[in-house]
Amino acid sequence: MPNPTASIIVIGNEILSGRTQDVNVQFLASRLGGMGISLREVRVIPDIRATIIDTVNELRARFDHVFTTGGIGPTHDDITSPCIAEAFGVPWEPHEPTMRMMQAHYAPGEFNAARQRMATLPRGARPIENPVSMAPGFSIGNVHVMAGVPRIMRAMFDALAPELEGGLPVKSVTMHAERLLEGSLADPLERIQMEFPDLDIGSYPFERPDGRRGVALLAKGTDDDALEAARLRIEALIGSLGHTPIAGEPAP
Amino acid sequence: MPNPTASIIVIGNEILSGRTQDVNVQFLASRLGGMGISLREVRVIPDIRATIIDTVNELRARFDHVFTTGGIGPTHDDITSPCIAEAFGVPWEPHEPTMRMMQAHYAPGEFNAARQRMATLPRGARPIENPVSMAPGFSIGNVHVMAGVPRIMRAMFDALAPELEGGLPVKSVTMHAERLLEGSLADPLERIQMEFPDLDIGSYPFERPDGRRGVALLAKGTDDDALEAARLRIEALIGSLGHTPIAGEPAP
Repeated sequence: MPNPTASIIVIGNEILSGRTQDVNVQFLASRLGGMGISLREVRVIPDIRATIIDTVNELRARFDHVFTTGGIGPTHDDITSPCIAEAFGVPWEPHEPTMRMMQAHYAPGEFNAARQRMATLPRGARPIENPVSMAPGFSIGNVHVMAGVPRIMRAMFDALAPELEGGLPVKSVTMHAERLLEGSLADPLERIQMEFPDLDIGSYPFERPDGRRGVALLAKGTDDDALEAARLRIEALIGSLGHTPIAGEPAP
Repeated sequence: MPNPTASIIVIGNEILSGRTQDVNVQFLASRLGGMGISLREVRVIPDIRATIIDTVNELRARFDHVFTTGGIGPTHDDITSPCIAEAFGVPWEPHEPTMRMMQAHYAPGEFNAARQRMATLPRGARPIENPVSMAPGFSIGNVHVMAGVPRIMRAMFDALAPELEGGLPVKSVTMHAERLLEGSLADPLERIQMEFPDLDIGSYPFERPDGRRGVALLAKGTDDDALEAARLRIEALIGSLGHTPIAGEPAP
């Protein structure tokens, strides 16, 4: 059976304006790969109601899992949660256990209307625990709604992960070589790719801060024996070009 | 007239696997905003022929500009260029001026088949100069195809930018406050948003490495007078909540 598939929707004007460097995609991509869930697409979209609804509905039909980040705070630009309710055609309503939990957390008078919005969820949603700042994420159907603040998103994913059905973990082996250039190894590398059709063979040039360049060659897949066989072929390729193969990724 | 719109397509398995942290989106987002080109959507997609073609054709119909990064190197997994040709329904063929330029650059025998692929472009494409490593990007129609390696992508964008028709530069003003929490300012902030419907008012919590928290409040738009008026209202809001308004983004 092929591994389950996933997409990520990053919701937030601050990414599209360049104010904020997203770091959630790389975190989720690595974690999902390790669980055998194949990340197939990422979208970054603005805080616009129709765009959020349409994107969620398109992607939840195409992928086994959809993860969203951003837009679940207390302010007017946090509209992800009601949009998810609308995408699923269910009411957006107070979630009583969450209301009680948050009420107990805040000092008298501080659990105001804005904060109560964060305890308002699509009907049928299952809260995702937030050990950092209380207000939960949630799952509904195959859509998992998380915060945009990286520390909170990571804690939510840790809480959610045990409930996700994974597949075969995707592993990778990497060899690199200093001074080697991509243009001199393209043909033999393609032959290695053809020899291992179930692996994903990639070539990534790197450049040191001092300007020295090289290439990292990587094989990715779920079959340990094929990965080791490909690693040996990559090692031999680098040697045959007169360079020294070095195991692992180049140091930054 | 509204500002021109744009989308970015990040093409590369290495982003979806978590191997590589994308930094091109933030660079392009900032530069485009400063030129008055409104970035509306980003997609990250794998090196799969049909996905690249479909995504390019969908987005070039929806936005004034489409920028792609990644997949224009010499190796087998670099398939962006022929896919763009297919998306436009034109032949993918040697671009003679680029062939001659690259031939002259390499030592005899080194301008091999793999490197000649980088001088092969969709018919009608206009090369984008690459002062870093020679092999050009290109524009065809409203699609601008650039490298994935950040230093090369930036150089290509610098070469391309003077040809792009911009709009009114999007500017932003930011005030922040230590210890202020989003939940206590949501309602008055929404009133400021309603007062300035042409601005985009956002609220972004931050956390220091030592755990101290606060909120940055931001107004974004093209009208200097409205921005200054909104800034004053935000400053007054922070003061009214008993906190000290500080100009600019919080230090990291």
